[in-house]
Amino acid sequence: MADASAYTPPVEDYAFLFTDAFGQDLVARATGGELTAEDATDIIAGAGEFAASVIAPLEAVGDRVGARLDDGQVRLPDGFAEAYRAFVEAGWVTAEAPVSAGGDGLPGAVRAGLGEIWNASNAAFALCWLLTAGEIHALDAAASDEIRETYLTKLVSGEWTGTMNLTEPAAGTDLGAIRTMATPRDDGSWAIRGQKIFITWGDHDIAENIVHLVLARTPGAPDGAKGLSLFVAPKVLVNDDGSLGDRNAITTVAIEHKLGIHGSPTCVLAYEDATGYLVGEVGGGLAGMFIMMNSARAGMGFQATGIADRAYQQAAAYAADRLQGGVLERPAGTPIAEHPDVRRLLLSMSSKIFAMRALGVYVGDLLDRADTDDFLVKLADFFVPILKGWTTEDAIAVTSDAIQVQGGMGFIEETGAAQHYRDVRITTIYEGTTAIQSNDLVGRKVLRDGGATVSELFERIDETVTQLRGFDHPVAGRTAERLERALAASRRATADLLGFAASPRDVYAVSVPYLMLLGTLAGGWMHALAAAAVLAHETPSETDAARLVSADFYGAHHLPRVHALAETVAGGEID
Amino acid sequence: MADASAYTPPVEDYAFLFTDAFGQDLVARATGGELTAEDATDIIAGAGEFAASVIAPLEAVGDRVGARLDDGQVRLPDGFAEAYRAFVEAGWVTAEAPVSAGGDGLPGAVRAGLGEIWNASNAAFALCWLLTAGEIHALDAAASDEIRETYLTKLVSGEWTGTMNLTEPAAGTDLGAIRTMATPRDDGSWAIRGQKIFITWGDHDIAENIVHLVLARTPGAPDGAKGLSLFVAPKVLVNDDGSLGDRNAITTVAIEHKLGIHGSPTCVLAYEDATGYLVGEVGGGLAGMFIMMNSARAGMGFQATGIADRAYQQAAAYAADRLQGGVLERPAGTPIAEHPDVRRLLLSMSSKIFAMRALGVYVGDLLDRADTDDFLVKLADFFVPILKGWTTEDAIAVTSDAIQVQGGMGFIEETGAAQHYRDVRITTIYEGTTAIQSNDLVGRKVLRDGGATVSELFERIDETVTQLRGFDHPVAGRTAERLERALAASRRATADLLGFAASPRDVYAVSVPYLMLLGTLAGGWMHALAAAAVLAHETPSETDAARLVSADFYGAHHLPRVHALAETVAGGEID
Repeated sequence: MADASAYTPPVEDYAFLFTDAFGQDLVARATGGELTAEDATDIIAGAGEFAASVIAPLEAVGDRVGARLDDGQVRLPDGFAEAYRAFVEAGWVTAEAPVSAGGDGLPGAVRAGLGEIWNASNAAFALCWLLTAGEIHALDAAASDEIRETYLTKLVSGEWTGTMNLTEPAAGTDLGAIRTMATPRDDGSWAIRGQKIFITWGDHDIAENIVHLVLARTPGAPDGAKGLSLFVAPKVLVNDDGSLGDRNAITTVAIEHKLGIHGSPTCVLAYEDATGYLVGEVGGGLAGMFIMMNSARAGMGFQATGIADRAYQQAAAYAADRLQGGVLERPAGTPIAEHPDVRRLLLSMSSKIFAMRALGVYVGDLLDRADTDDFLVKLADFFVPILKGWTTEDAIAVTSDAIQVQGGMGFIEETGAAQHYRDVRITTIYEGTTAIQSNDLVGRKVLRDGGATVSELFERIDETVTQLRGFDHPVAGRTAERLERALAASRRATADLLGFAASPRDVYAVSVPYLMLLGTLAGGWMHALAAAAVLAHETPSETDAARLVSADFYGAHHLPRVHALAETVAGGEID
Repeated sequence: MADASAYTPPVEDYAFLFTDAFGQDLVARATGGELTAEDATDIIAGAGEFAASVIAPLEAVGDRVGARLDDGQVRLPDGFAEAYRAFVEAGWVTAEAPVSAGGDGLPGAVRAGLGEIWNASNAAFALCWLLTAGEIHALDAAASDEIRETYLTKLVSGEWTGTMNLTEPAAGTDLGAIRTMATPRDDGSWAIRGQKIFITWGDHDIAENIVHLVLARTPGAPDGAKGLSLFVAPKVLVNDDGSLGDRNAITTVAIEHKLGIHGSPTCVLAYEDATGYLVGEVGGGLAGMFIMMNSARAGMGFQATGIADRAYQQAAAYAADRLQGGVLERPAGTPIAEHPDVRRLLLSMSSKIFAMRALGVYVGDLLDRADTDDFLVKLADFFVPILKGWTTEDAIAVTSDAIQVQGGMGFIEETGAAQHYRDVRITTIYEGTTAIQSNDLVGRKVLRDGGATVSELFERIDETVTQLRGFDHPVAGRTAERLERALAASRRATADLLGFAASPRDVYAVSVPYLMLLGTLAGGWMHALAAAAVLAHETPSETDAARLVSADFYGAHHLPRVHALAETVAGGEID
């Protein structure tokens, strides 16, 4: 049997995406030449090696043993604390933090790759880092110097970890219903009281302190989301000299028994007049939290890509090892990978994963460049919900295909295929469900500007169609033709959606299909860009040939979904 | 929180399907008037009540505690043996067995409903019955009088249970690789030696004996599938007077730790010169097993429908209970079921489930009538792989949607949503993977007769389009128009597939997409028939109105997938 803990980082894909695929060295552009794509590829390779050797081996035990709540303290399986320490010491937390926060400020395209790699090797483990990274962004944007010095520096060094405390029993998607109260004290701190649920890595024993970012209501604040403010509340209070003092009044009441990501403790936290410190302005909580959310949402796209790729790698290894009778022009003892339907499943998975990965790099790069160009700001905002929504939804299908490739063995827990199918299922829910992503996309980013941003995006895709038509190659021809038809359907769907503007129920009854349509189209665009890049090579390599097959497959098996979704969007609400 | 163990049998749907939906009383036709649709509905209601009160409450404990192997004996959680005894005493095993085998011979349309209900209430539990029912069919068709008397009668009474022993470590989908040997003894029995894996309910403690149906190779038999013969081998040997004697030489070596259906023991069985008895002719094993397989494959369709409906019911109950802030023309404290995207998810699920359920009744009825008409034989054979393949694939999506409706709570094991997502995942694998179903469909049932059967089916669907055009109602008009376009795409896809006949790799690289296309089309046809039936009512009820919404929704959200799949089929193998 293939080694379920094996993980091969997709270094070659990232090398291609950092340079060729988008027609230039994205890394050099983002860093003003300080780093090149070649340097970035070395970073990816180094991260991949670390992930494969240190983090990936803990994936199975994280699932099997999982996090335990033991006398008020959450404990992780043996090896997690050591691995986290090694992760911090290797500088991976600091590497991705912004320069303004004291980090190395790796560019967004590289962060996309690192995000995928940490999550592919062990999604439950990676969540701890992912939330810390999000909190770093939020504090960097809004926190006072005092908070920066006391908390942000410790998060950026990786010594302490971060969490995001939004959800309460009666306030999930509807944050306006939050009831946790923060009452000011004379010393400038706040007393926080309430219960928060679904707090990822809300307690653990792999770092000495945890910095909770908490959304709470202040006395006399208006109802709804406008009355929310943001606070940091540490697990262990910090003395004036920076040393650790007493435990804060935050108790881990329970941890959840979940379908997946068992190695990530999901906590119920009781705040019993816990000490907190205001971040930003009173009433500015949601804005502050959204900075963290945006980073976390893009991160979910990378997570879904990572889990999908790990599932794919395992299925591909199984299919290469498993011999069955000869089928259709193949002799007896042929690996099942060559059976037509297994090959279909593997190509279906890998062509989706490439599209997700490429979109991750594209969006990661956009997020960096957003402050240089008004349109890029809009495009980055436009793509975050698509990256989060579409990638996570399609990743579920990829992990399901990985089970299918392995047949009965895929259903047995020991092979590890089931874990990916279980782990990935949360990705369409947390950090905003797919419906929330689609409402954000449709409401704020399509309807609000009357479709201006999406129209300009479509024109960029037109250019890729034109570019492909310049190559005398059957895959270029087919890809251009399919992409052009998909674009036409997408324009029709967008017009239909804009036509519903006066009838919000019609809009929001088809917002998820519309998001999936745009994600599927974006995936086709990524493949078209890759095909164009490959076809420009003078001497095509074996990898180049495989990239063309992948693009061709995506065009025949995935892109046509745009036509079905466009028909769905046209229908609006069915009642 | 909604009660996760609650189950409401879909009695009203079955009443509609037994009469209205197909334009006549299917039950009266199948039984020559001995039973009517009304009687059958009473049977469904009785089964539903039994399932809801006796079987459904064991679903969660079956998952949480599961089957255990304890010193060579598999043990089920408390309550399983009692429930099985009650199931047998209520006559439910006998009710479905053919009259020729001593059963009550309920018609196929009713068996479809019962199959759904047993599986909805507890799929792991239902598997024991499902395999017993399959073995009854196989023995009824091929066994000697002696075997009928000793074993078949005990299976039909429900006192003993049945299993199906095909798979071995190196012989899964490729049955020709089976190596278990059966050697004749002087007394007419055979000595069976080998190891079988993935044996569902291969051992347990809820009935006093188990009758294994075993595929094995005889000395000097030709290689491959032609060398296989079929045997019965009991767990406990039966004395000449019918009393139970010594244990047979069959050992439960292990049970699997699986993603789902934990209440169904999946066994590794070692046959160490175990005593078996030949069923049918030497070398006729595969043919005999296929009788069981066909019954089991249709049964998998009912199982998938059942799990999907249980998942739906739970999600719908959650969405009706869970209040969140007012959204889009709905006041604060509105159940989330009225939020546009939750409503979309619920309608997506329920409209698929209705299509699956209706197709189950249609195919169940066809299987009964197959001996009366050459075309119906072909149509029944044609639809079994579609029912199995399409229903199981789509049921996975339904259970995933059920989690999505429940958000973060759906990911917590206690709510029960995760169990359905885990349980259903095996249905596309066992009793022949979706690829196996699609190869059967495409190879034996489309290419072999040059598309004659499928063309005749398309003509029947044409008639439904014409019928719908006779109603002056917007849903009738839209449904007819969508179905007509889907039919045209299906005809093109079929022509494309037939055009690949000389290039088998092209055929089998798109056989699953083609199966999914036909399943999706069949679902649209079922909704069209239902819409036509409803529109013929003089005074439409509330349920009638809901059926029209469901048909309209299926037409806008699911049927358009046919167009995407047709484009995929046209591409053949991508290389």
